[in-house]
Amino acid sequence: MSDKNEQYQNDQYYEHHVFICMNQREDGRPCCADRGAQAAQEHAKRRIKELNLNGQGKVRINKSGCLDRCEEGPVLVVYPQGTWYTYVDNEDIDEIIDEHLVGGKVVARLKI
Amino acid sequence: MSDKNEQYQNDQYYEHHVFICMNQREDGRPCCADRGAQAAQEHAKRRIKELNLNGQGKVRINKSGCLDRCEEGPVLVVYPQGTWYTYVDNEDIDEIIDEHLVGGKVVARLKI
Repeated sequence: MSDKNEQYQNDQYYEHHVFICMNQREDGRPCCADRGAQAAQEHAKRRIKELNLNGQGKVRINKSGCLDRCEEGPVLVVYPQGTWYTYVDNEDIDEIIDEHLVGGKVVARLKI
Repeated sequence: MSDKNEQYQNDQYYEHHVFICMNQREDGRPCCADRGAQAAQEHAKRRIKELNLNGQGKVRINKSGCLDRCEEGPVLVVYPQGTWYTYVDNEDIDEIIDEHLVGGKVVARLKI
């Protein structure tokens, strides 16, 4: 890591800040909204709250506009790590929560 | 930085991934949408495109849902650095673009 990046790495407001692409396209190209993004976002948000992991210093589940990786979607990204995932269903979302957000390990099979 | 974080710090898809909170509240609490978020997002997106800084390995300007720092808004966050900013007008947005996204230096006066 460069010195330039190191100067930023302090006091993250959220330990894991998750952005789930919710974009709806009308032009026929693939989009995350057509591939279950809303259900995934609602499930992740509910589960993080149940686990009491939501809030400052912990986890934030966010909706986002188009993350511009449409052909690989549905996609989400976890910052500050910058780990990108795709998913199919709630079991995949749970695996990302349990392994990455709780356990701190990248889920290799879902990583893009 | 912990070893745990270091394992993630490789090959960021975007050098700077900017999320601008666009949330509109209807409950009377402050919200970024009432404080110029849309104009800021459009300005940032247009300027980054003009500078030819948009795209993989460079910069992405994203809309996001509520970032949950409403009282400090309007807010945006730059990842993977995890630097949070507030802003008032397009001049502030330009300063964040010129100093942070291009120059790699935190804009202390706008940082929250």
